[in-house]
Amino acid sequence: MPEQNAEHLARPHVAALDEILGEVLPVLDDGFVRVVDYMGDDRAVVQAARVSYGEGTKKVSDDRGLIRYLLRHRHTTPFEMCEIKLHVRVPMDAWRQWIRHRTASVNETSTRYSIAIDAAQRTAPDQWRQQARSNRQGSEGELGPDAGRTLSEEEAGLQDHARRVYLGRLERGVAREQARKDLPLCTYTEAYWKIDLHNLLHFLALRMDPHAQQEIRDYARVIGEEITARWVPLVWEAFADYRLGALGLSRLDRAVLAALGRGDADAAVEVAREAGWLEISAKTGGLKRHRERTEFEAKAAELGITPPWRGD
Amino acid sequence: MPEQNAEHLARPHVAALDEILGEVLPVLDDGFVRVVDYMGDDRAVVQAARVSYGEGTKKVSDDRGLIRYLLRHRHTTPFEMCEIKLHVRVPMDAWRQWIRHRTASVNETSTRYSIAIDAAQRTAPDQWRQQARSNRQGSEGELGPDAGRTLSEEEAGLQDHARRVYLGRLERGVAREQARKDLPLCTYTEAYWKIDLHNLLHFLALRMDPHAQQEIRDYARVIGEEITARWVPLVWEAFADYRLGALGLSRLDRAVLAALGRGDADAAVEVAREAGWLEISAKTGGLKRHRERTEFEAKAAELGITPPWRGD
Amino acid sequence: MPEQNAEHLARPHVAALDEILGEVLPVLDDGFVRVVDYMGDDRAVVQAARVSYGEGTKKVSDDRGLIRYLLRHRHTTPFEMCEIKLHVRVPMDAWRQWIRHRTASVNETSTRYSIAIDAAQRTAPDQWRQQARSNRQGSEGELGPDAGRTLSEEEAGLQDHARRVYLGRLERGVAREQARKDLPLCTYTEAYWKIDLHNLLHFLALRMDPHAQQEIRDYARVIGEEITARWVPLVWEAFADYRLGALGLSRLDRAVLAALGRGDADAAVEVAREAGWLEISAKTGGLKRHRERTEFEAKAAELGITPPWRGD
Amino acid sequence: MPEQNAEHLARPHVAALDEILGEVLPVLDDGFVRVVDYMGDDRAVVQAARVSYGEGTKKVSDDRGLIRYLLRHRHTTPFEMCEIKLHVRVPMDAWRQWIRHRTASVNETSTRYSIAIDAAQRTAPDQWRQQARSNRQGSEGELGPDAGRTLSEEEAGLQDHARRVYLGRLERGVAREQARKDLPLCTYTEAYWKIDLHNLLHFLALRMDPHAQQEIRDYARVIGEEITARWVPLVWEAFADYRLGALGLSRLDRAVLAALGRGDADAAVEVAREAGWLEISAKTGGLKRHRERTEFEAKAAELGITPPWRGD
Repeated sequence: MPEQNAEHLARPHVAALDEILGEVLPVLDDGFVRVVDYMGDDRAVVQAARVSYGEGTKKVSDDRGLIRYLLRHRHTTPFEMCEIKLHVRVPMDAWRQWIRHRTASVNETSTRYSIAIDAAQRTAPDQWRQQARSNRQGSEGELGPDAGRTLSEEEAGLQDHARRVYLGRLERGVAREQARKDLPLCTYTEAYWKIDLHNLLHFLALRMDPHAQQEIRDYARVIGEEITARWVPLVWEAFADYRLGALGLSRLDRAVLAALGRGDADAAVEVAREAGWLEISAKTGGLKRHRERTEFEAKAAELGITPPWRGD
Repeated sequence: MPEQNAEHLARPHVAALDEILGEVLPVLDDGFVRVVDYMGDDRAVVQAARVSYGEGTKKVSDDRGLIRYLLRHRHTTPFEMCEIKLHVRVPMDAWRQWIRHRTASVNETSTRYSIAIDAAQRTAPDQWRQQARSNRQGSEGELGPDAGRTLSEEEAGLQDHARRVYLGRLERGVAREQARKDLPLCTYTEAYWKIDLHNLLHFLALRMDPHAQQEIRDYARVIGEEITARWVPLVWEAFADYRLGALGLSRLDRAVLAALGRGDADAAVEVAREAGWLEISAKTGGLKRHRERTEFEAKAAELGITPPWRGD
Repeated sequence: MPEQNAEHLARPHVAALDEILGEVLPVLDDGFVRVVDYMGDDRAVVQAARVSYGEGTKKVSDDRGLIRYLLRHRHTTPFEMCEIKLHVRVPMDAWRQWIRHRTASVNETSTRYSIAIDAAQRTAPDQWRQQARSNRQGSEGELGPDAGRTLSEEEAGLQDHARRVYLGRLERGVAREQARKDLPLCTYTEAYWKIDLHNLLHFLALRMDPHAQQEIRDYARVIGEEITARWVPLVWEAFADYRLGALGLSRLDRAVLAALGRGDADAAVEVAREAGWLEISAKTGGLKRHRERTEFEAKAAELGITPPWRGD
Repeated sequence: MPEQNAEHLARPHVAALDEILGEVLPVLDDGFVRVVDYMGDDRAVVQAARVSYGEGTKKVSDDRGLIRYLLRHRHTTPFEMCEIKLHVRVPMDAWRQWIRHRTASVNETSTRYSIAIDAAQRTAPDQWRQQARSNRQGSEGELGPDAGRTLSEEEAGLQDHARRVYLGRLERGVAREQARKDLPLCTYTEAYWKIDLHNLLHFLALRMDPHAQQEIRDYARVIGEEITARWVPLVWEAFADYRLGALGLSRLDRAVLAALGRGDADAAVEVAREAGWLEISAKTGGLKRHRERTEFEAKAAELGITPPWRGD
């Protein structure tokens, strides 16, 4: 029989999170995130791990060390023992990316039952982003202020047009579920979103990433830095060290670096050649483009290492 | 050791489904559903059930009887042993409802990577539906042809406007991920959608229901009647009998009906009264509205039974 | 912007559940269930539903009516907004059935890390159950006290033998992960088990069912009646009425009953005949056994209805 | 409308896998794995990715390059488009670890319906493993042949005893569900197990790992090397390079290595000191044990780098 000690007799609270409970944290021009409720804290992760690994873990690890160990070695189940429930207001096009995470519980405002929220996301003249050249899915830099002004005016015109048509349909008695069909993708919606800490960290790792779209990154940043960091500070620190700040080396990366480490440049080149990284372009006489090699070179550069094929 | 009989040495095929493999089944004005691949058939359900329940089931049940038994008693795991992969083209507002089913695998066309599909769902003049009065989320009947013509013209105007703005943004170099933000919610998208048979039936039960929105019902009907019925005909028959055609009686429904069945109208009234079904409106002197009682009365009517409080 | 009213500024508590927080609720000879933490209450279900369906729901439904409506019509997502975390101690053979529910989070004591719990479930002489005849998977009635005494003695002998071998292996330095391999299936294990309310109700519906094995039913009963009933009393009441106490009529059941309801026995017989319910056994001259017909007859009997083929 | 090209009109087959379809691949003394059915192949992964990223991907990547890119950058959804169904026979204690993977579909033989399989895993005298000292959950090395013989004899004696008691209970009419309770944990069971390729790779990464228990590693090795490698050879190669053979560097690891890379040993020591890696033990005068530092040192050694605090 377990001791019925004090630890179990009261539900854990996190004072730093309680302070912002229910508070509207603004995102974008008209969106927000609010914490509605939560369950568990840093200690709940530790407590669950100790059920699995036995009391022996108590001696060898303090809470912080254990949390870091669990996160580093991807022992994920103890992180599922914490849960958080948010109320969010998000443009539908960002929301579409959001709910691709299937492990959360969701209750979203229905525009079949209710009239759609009278707000679509507006873009300020200095916020229009240019299509990235290097990256098919991204953006880089902003368009100039003149182009921006025109684009923002056009946007307002289109959104007003869409709203007029929507309201006109409702007036004529068209069913709400059909009337909404031509509203802009960036019309705001609201939802309750509930997720456990393990899956939340996965969401944050993907959506705080520089490759994620700016709009959802804005939400992820607030959920990460303003909410999760308050809620579970030890987990958040470990997540920053082992997930956000991590770098993965592949089997090939390791083989090349190990060869260089023992001073054997020939072996390093041999590994790279076998991997197909060093093909010569007939046109330029230089190395052909190779995505894996380029990614390796960036990692090596960070470690202060110049690959032998880049030598001299 | 199991016998390595012929049954196991070839993958099961379903000739009736193979006939339409890869074929475009049109839905709405510009959407479709196509079967890309599948795994398993009626016999795969039976085979999995026999692993669970042992060979003894072979004697007492033929395949059809066993499938009906499993479905009737919600033994759901054997139905997970079949899998289907569809390629669909759907307006994004219907797709939003679709992907609320979290147990499927999805790869959707990204409008960050690619230019959005140049098609939004258009509504013919005779297809504009009226808001339902009795049901906040539904529609009932159509608007007249005059109103319909105006609405369809407005719709075309708005969709053309949205398209012009979208293309104009792309021309000016706005990032695709941002340019798309004001496209209509009903812009078409495409996806691969893969789901197991158990979860597919759950999807169909919800989306073939008269309460589902017309557009997604059109898709569900094609997936159910034109695809699932060919793929697993015995499961489909059982599904029609035990799920689509089923009626649920609550504990209260049963208590009232049982009292009536044994001729004890007083007891029936007593159960209803305790359930709060028979409160009198001070205004009208008649029974107050009560959703559970109304639902009960509809079920009783179908069984040819008049509740005593409706008597006279 | 939402009002930041008091409702949101404090996390919901349920006094009746707080009373037993952390308390050991005994099950079987040496098992238990304890509530470690929870999130949400009856009102959290209502709150989530109102996000979906809009404020309009406030006027037409009080909380109880809305919860009953949601449960009756299987609008399941609002029930996912509540979460509970239990600490359980269970024989491993019951635990194997338990964790077949895949939608929960689990941290179980590892017998690779720690020495296995020194307890296996013991059976009292009057608790040995007879194999059911009618139902291949069930049990019915108890064996007599004499047989029971012998069986309990044998059980103690075997469990002691298994324990001796286990401890002997550990003494000889065998790895814990291997030493445990011949412990009895009913050796106790402990776990933290966290699940949302929707999935908990599904678990309870299956595991409180008379077809479930006695041991897991004992756990389900405690979790249902002693924990869930305190935690979310309105949900529990609705669950009892619409799930535990429900009866399902198939399309065929309905067709036969409707025909009888309008006094058309011939039509009723015709439906049954087409369904294959009324085949005559060449041997006995009576009706052949038919599982679907038998199930129908039991339902009809409850409603006070005698099928025409049973007439006279 | 998509072209209805040949690629879609036939279901993909993998000749190398078809060769072993249904074949028993033995594992342990009496277990096995068999492929029952599968859906998709390397090309199905590519096909799904191209739906997401658009046709543009066709030009820049051949199939192999695209698969490697997807796996390297954890774009996981295209791997969910392939599915495999296995028939396995496994000792229940290994099976308990196996079904902790919640994303698979399972039909397991029920020992409530059927008599338990008459086989428990037996250990040969040279297979008894010693408890690891360094690692609480592992094993290392074997016990000598004399100890092994004694242990194997004891094992046989206990398993025979357990079987006798089990059969005795059945003879006396005890319900199967109760009679089985004292069978050894390593009694064999059989199941159909169906999982998608993404989740299968996750399973293999965890269960082929040297930290996994030997028994389940034996199964994972067969499923990986004998089945998955045949089924999806390009995915398997990428998995070996980017998952099995990968090494993760944390934010701290990177900071120390980068400082060393630019020749700044002081900065490297400073990072390590701030991370708490370099505390001095009052007892020994040397560095205190620190798990994160030890893990870093192992990585550095592989790259041929000696940390400055280990210098001289």
